[in-house]
Formats: sequence, structure tokens, C-alpha cells
Amino acid sequence: MTAVGIDAIEIWTGNLKLDLPGTFAPEKGEDPEKYTKGLGLNASSFPDSYEDIVTMGANAAHRLMERKGLEPDDIGRIDVATESAFDNSKPVSTYVAGCLEQVFDGDFHHANKGERKFACIAGTQSLDDAYNWIRAGRNRGRSAIVIATDTALYARGDAGEATQGAGAVAMLISEDPNLVELSAEQGYGSADETDFLKPNQQFPSVDGKRSVQVYLARMREALEDYESVAGDVHPDDFEYAPFHTPFPGMVRKAAMLAYRHVIRDTSVEDELADEIGRQPRPEAFDDDEAFREAVREYMDELKETEAYQEWYAETIDPTLSISREVGNWYTGSVHIARASALKHALESDRDMTGERLLVGSYGSGAQAEIHSEVVQDGWEDEIEALNVESQLEARYDMSWADYEEVHDVHNHDMDVDVEEFTAPESEFVFDGWGRMGERKYRYVE
Amino acid sequence: MTAVGIDAIEIWTGNLKLDLPGTFAPEKGEDPEKYTKGLGLNASSFPDSYEDIVTMGANAAHRLMERKGLEPDDIGRIDVATESAFDNSKPVSTYVAGCLEQVFDGDFHHANKGERKFACIAGTQSLDDAYNWIRAGRNRGRSAIVIATDTALYARGDAGEATQGAGAVAMLISEDPNLVELSAEQGYGSADETDFLKPNQQFPSVDGKRSVQVYLARMREALEDYESVAGDVHPDDFEYAPFHTPFPGMVRKAAMLAYRHVIRDTSVEDELADEIGRQPRPEAFDDDEAFREAVREYMDELKETEAYQEWYAETIDPTLSISREVGNWYTGSVHIARASALKHALESDRDMTGERLLVGSYGSGAQAEIHSEVVQDGWEDEIEALNVESQLEARYDMSWADYEEVHDVHNHDMDVDVEEFTAPESEFVFDGWGRMGERKYRYVE
Repeated sequence: MTAVGIDAIEIWTGNLKLDLPGTFAPEKGEDPEKYTKGLGLNASSFPDSYEDIVTMGANAAHRLMERKGLEPDDIGRIDVATESAFDNSKPVSTYVAGCLEQVFDGDFHHANKGERKFACIAGTQSLDDAYNWIRAGRNRGRSAIVIATDTALYARGDAGEATQGAGAVAMLISEDPNLVELSAEQGYGSADETDFLKPNQQFPSVDGKRSVQVYLARMREALEDYESVAGDVHPDDFEYAPFHTPFPGMVRKAAMLAYRHVIRDTSVEDELADEIGRQPRPEAFDDDEAFREAVREYMDELKETEAYQEWYAETIDPTLSISREVGNWYTGSVHIARASALKHALESDRDMTGERLLVGSYGSGAQAEIHSEVVQDGWEDEIEALNVESQLEARYDMSWADYEEVHDVHNHDMDVDVEEFTAPESEFVFDGWGRMGERKYRYVE
Repeated sequence: MTAVGIDAIEIWTGNLKLDLPGTFAPEKGEDPEKYTKGLGLNASSFPDSYEDIVTMGANAAHRLMERKGLEPDDIGRIDVATESAFDNSKPVSTYVAGCLEQVFDGDFHHANKGERKFACIAGTQSLDDAYNWIRAGRNRGRSAIVIATDTALYARGDAGEATQGAGAVAMLISEDPNLVELSAEQGYGSADETDFLKPNQQFPSVDGKRSVQVYLARMREALEDYESVAGDVHPDDFEYAPFHTPFPGMVRKAAMLAYRHVIRDTSVEDELADEIGRQPRPEAFDDDEAFREAVREYMDELKETEAYQEWYAETIDPTLSISREVGNWYTGSVHIARASALKHALESDRDMTGERLLVGSYGSGAQAEIHSEVVQDGWEDEIEALNVESQLEARYDMSWADYEEVHDVHNHDMDVDVEEFTAPESEFVFDGWGRMGERKYRYVE
């Protein structure tokens, strides 16, 4: 069976930066380590006044097509995943295609465009739809572009304010991909949850504690479902495990639980038994509370073992490097985690061809999905081509007053004009409203 | 290759009715024929105060599962298509699954849930995603439920007010389907258009004239794209052609253009040549205006031919019967057109097994899709099981004052309580808001 997966990716960050320890913490009167150590975040990316989900998505897709030498006729499908849409009917993908048609000779009139919404998991769902479309033999030799784009803003003063972010990831899905092949096997954990939602509102209502619990519960369910079709997961099976990263601290919690799960009944558990004992099993306890207390104790000890710390440092920590500098990108988050991991591999000369990734996506509301990916032999060139570091360095570092202005500009309920902080160059920009309330865009050379 | 397609459908109408000639026309001081003949509509369906996109979708899906003897474990995917969502993050499918879990023993925790948005075409896009998921071999023997649900309301006094509607269509997508097999071949016509949109607003901004032009232009493009992969379409190839029906008058226009297109260079054009001449070809004219004038004249004459009128009466008109009584259901519209056609076939004893349908979907913004379907040998039982007529008859016929109240109840910007007009029975109902602004639901026996 021909491999189908991600041929190439491009990342486009919002052009502004909010320094969490340097700017956010002093303003809030908090210890900077609350952010850098607790959440695991150094900075958030923000959109400048001329940026939005369309410009970031179109800029990422434009760079992707240019770099890969693609013309519109090569693309049979453009799907956008977002939870920051500004229209209840017209999909973002039509705006993105409209932008791209300004700079390419051809058009996308025979490409299927769409939009998916399910909190942060919709990017992966769109990836799956594109994979299935190719596997179903309906692509006529063409590839799909999947764009995950969000402005993850919270109401001012909300507990989530420190985890904001803005950016887009564009992915090219094709046969014989250069970067990773996707597994046919998938595991789902999904339930009707009220952890995070946006009922007729732009900024989310969040139950932070519940959201952490739901992330962990659904992810565990997804992992078990994945194992039911793909076989048991062993920690040595995967070089990296990129997970949805609302903030790195969340992934630390998930990694701990995942590690406990995947080492159970393996030689790893056996080898650790001398040091910290075997994992508590529910059948050995009279009541649930005692069992859970024993699990907590085991986890506290497991966390300190060299085995766990080494696994975490090699498999999980490298997935968090971009996230630490940009915050939560919602639908794009798990896809920058994959990119972070592969950048780490390139920088540390790991030979990744044929190696596997365990990818965990999550969306509040709530659903987790687990699948695996096999790294393809073109991965080094693809990762080398990313310019994410120079993008991050080029961001304008906002003062607190700048941040307050920018937040207002992107608030749909406010009508505020602010001078741009950066000068757009070779990118699409927002260009005002049309007569029916539509947003208009142009390309700046 | 195993057939994949629609195994069964269920239709759920809003429980209220607005009589267009009897109630709407007198209030507007208009000739009733403006609606019955011009638009082709007799009535619109509306949601009662306890109904919304979730209740209608869940009720249709519940009836579908009950009738087909399905349990949650039989379902691997629940996708909802809507342009009436009330949350920017949490998808309607999670609410629907939450409803269904109230009445079934099992749960949908391992089903992939999602939501698609692209004006009225998202229902067909979700159908395609489900088809592709099965063709990609990822369904583990399970089926998908696709729900197209909308409350198609316009601002009071808007030109679209007469074309409103509310209802849901639930479809079961599976291997070896009872109803229709979907073609692998698809044609797309898609462009970045500003004909109809909802920028941060519940009710649409519509450019009515532009919307008609865009519907026709994109549909033509989709038909040509379809022919490029499936071969030329001949009018005798298809028993019925269900099209997206914002109002039946729109389909009359589209049918005329489609007929001219598909008879070109066929024996039908030859046979009509004595009566009305051959179709004008652009190369025979000095300028475009003269050519277009000749086309208009040809169309006027073609419309009066027995050949066209017979084709329209047999192939198109039967697709409009439900739409005439319910108005525009947005994402569900083309799917009630298919149901109307097959009901007509059943009632007129047509043997449909192995016969083909040409299905034309459309969404403003804008995109058209054309594919074909082959009717399967279980179709009669499936269509016989529909209770749409008794649902339509049971609707409460609103007075003008009732209508004004109901419109306000469903206006997200108003906070209005209204006594229900009908008594819910064996259905899910809206049950108030939860602490995070989420909508809550319960089942009424």
C-alpha cells in the first residue's frame, strides 16, 4: 500500500510577542517562574493589527506552495481547522484560496474547500479527512493542503490569559510523503464534556481544573482504543510523542500518566520494581480510595526514577520547544509539537528515517485521538527548510501598553484602530471590510 | 469494490409551520402567488421554543438508530454539518452524542465526532468524509452517522424571510448500503465569493441577485469538472437530479441551464433542431453580447418544448415536493430533495434499483459539488419507513403573532421566553443553560 501522510509543513507565527516572565509577570505581580516553570512558557505569539486567522493561514500555505514548487492545479483540497472563525457560514478556506489566487496564476476552482471545528483537535481531524480522501482514490493525483490556524485569545484577566497564542501551521498531505506516513490505526476517547466552550462568544469559558482532568481521561481512553487495534504500546516503540500542548505543564502531567500506562506489564516495570515496587493493581485494594492513594505514591516515585526522567527528556521534552516560545495555537498545537521533535532530531543528529512517533491530539468538549507516524527519508530536508526560529526572533516584543491595545484590536466586540507595530513584507494582510461585512485581504510585496 | 453509500435516512422537521400564502402573504400585503409560484413555496418549518439544531439532529439520529436496530458500538463516526452553530469551539456532534447516550445503554466514546461548516454544502462534504473513511478502511466494520441540521432564519423583514426553514436530516453511511451507492467521481466548482455570509452574526447578509448568479456559475463549473472525470452527462442517464433547493424557483433556473448543457451535441439537440434550431455556439458570433442574446432566445424556446417540459416534470419537479412544504433547510436541503425524488418513485411505482441520480450540492461563499448515486435494492423499504408526511401534517400552524414570538425566541441577541406551542413527545428538548453557558437537553417520553 502506498504511504500517505504529511509531505511538508510550514509554520507561520503571529508577528508580535508577549514576554511572560519579563512583561506579563511583573504587571500581574507574580513570580516569573509561575509561567516559565509552572506553565512551562516563556512567551506568547500575537497577531499584529493587520493579521488574523486568514493572513496567517494563507502566509503559511503560500510559503508551503512556493517552497514545494506547487501550482493551484496540484491541490485538490483545502481544509482549514479553526476555533477562531469570524463567520458562521463562509469558511476560512475560501478566503485563504482567494488570497493565494492573488499571487498564483492558476485558481483553485476544482478544489474542495472546507472548514472543521472541534476545539483544538480539528487540525488532526482535517489531516485525517485528507488522508482518507487520498486512500479512497478520489484525489486524481493531487495533494491536499490542511491549515490549522487560530488566534487563541482569552478575555482580559481570565486565568487562561498567560497561555494565549496565535499562529498557523500549513501541511501538505500526499502520497509518498517526504516527512511522515500516517498510520491507518487510530484510537479515540470522546465524551460530551463542558470543560471549555465558546457559546456565542469569541473568548472561551474555561473550567481549568476540569479541563486538565478531561484531557487526561480522554487521552487515556484514546490510548487504550489505539492499543485495541494497533497492539500494546511500549515506551521503546516511539522516538518522540508529540501531544497537544495547551501549555507544556499539561503535557508533563499527561506524559507521566502515559508512561505509567505503557510500562505496565513490560520489562521496564520489572526493572523498576527493585527501586519503587510494582504498579498498584486495583484488585489488590479493598477500596478505590486506597488504590488511588497508592497510585499517587507510585507516580511520585516513578517521576524521580532515572528511567522516567531519561524517557521524558528524550521523548517528550523535545516536543515542547516551539510551544514554550509561542503559547497555545489551538488547532496547530500538536503540529508544532511534531515539528519541535523533528527539529530536535535534526539538531542532535538522530537518524529518524523509519522511526516512529506517537501523536496525541486533543480538543475540549471533548475528544482525544492517538495515531502513530513513521518518519520518511525526506524528513531532514523538510525540517531543515523550516524558518521558524528566524520568525520567532523577528517578532516585535510588546510592552504591556502595546499588548492591551493589540488585544482590543482583535476583540470582535470592540471597534479599535491601532497602528501596526511591524512592517509587513512578502505577506498577506487584512485590508478592511467590504460592503457585506466581509474581511478583505491583499498581498504586500 | 464494495459499495459504500447511504444506508438509511431520517428527516426531522421543526414542529411549527408558517403558511406562506395564508399567513405571510397577507401580512406583507403581497399576492400569495409571489410565494407559491415565484419561489415555489407553500410553507416553512420552524423550531418550537424547545427545539434547536441539537434537538432536531438528535431526534433524527435517534429515530434512525432505533429503526435500524443500532447500538452506539455500531457507530464509529458522528459528523454534524451546520451553519447555525451556537458555539465557536464545542461541536454540535458532542451535544447530539450526549443526547443519544441518555436513551441508549452504550456510549460513543470511541466514535470520532466532528463538525463541518461551509454554508449549505457541508452536509454533502460530511457525507464524503464518511464515505472516504470507510473506503480508507478505517471504520473497523462500523458505520457513520452524518447529520445536517439548521435553523435557517433571516432577520425580520429581510428579503430571505420567505425562504426560511428548520429541520434536520440524519444519514447512516455504510458498506453495502440499502439506499444509494455514492460515486467515487466528483466534480467541484468553487470560488471565493461574497454572495451570502454571516460575519460574526446569526442572521445572514445576502446579495440575492449575486447569490443566484453564483449558484449557477459554480454549479456549471462543477458539472464540467464532473464530466471531466466521469464522462459526458446525457439527460437519459439519470432518473432524478436532486439539487440544493434554497427555494424551488432557484432549481427551476438551474435545471434549465443544466438541460441546455447536457443536451448539447446529443441526439436530443438534433431532434429539437427542427423545432427551435441548434444551440448558439460562441464562435458563430462577432461579440459576446450577441451570443448571450442568442442563448437567451434559445433558452426561452427550449423551455417551451415538450422534451424539456417532460424532462423537468420527471427528473426535477419530483425532487421539490418536501422543500415546498418546509422551506430552506440549508445543509439538509439537497438531502430532502433526494428523499422527495425517491418518495415520488415509490408512489408512482418506478423500479429504481440500479437507476442513477445526479446530485448537485451547493454552498454560498461558494462551492458546488456534483456526484452520482446508484439506487440500491433496499431503497423501497427505506423510503417506505419515512414518516415525513405525518410529521408535516402534525406541525402547529402559526398565526402571525405566534411567528413573531418564535422568531424572537430563536434570536441569539434576545432573551425571550415563550410558552411552547406543541407538546413534545418521545423527543429530545432544550432544557435550559448550564453554569458555563452550555445548552442542556433532556428526553421527554
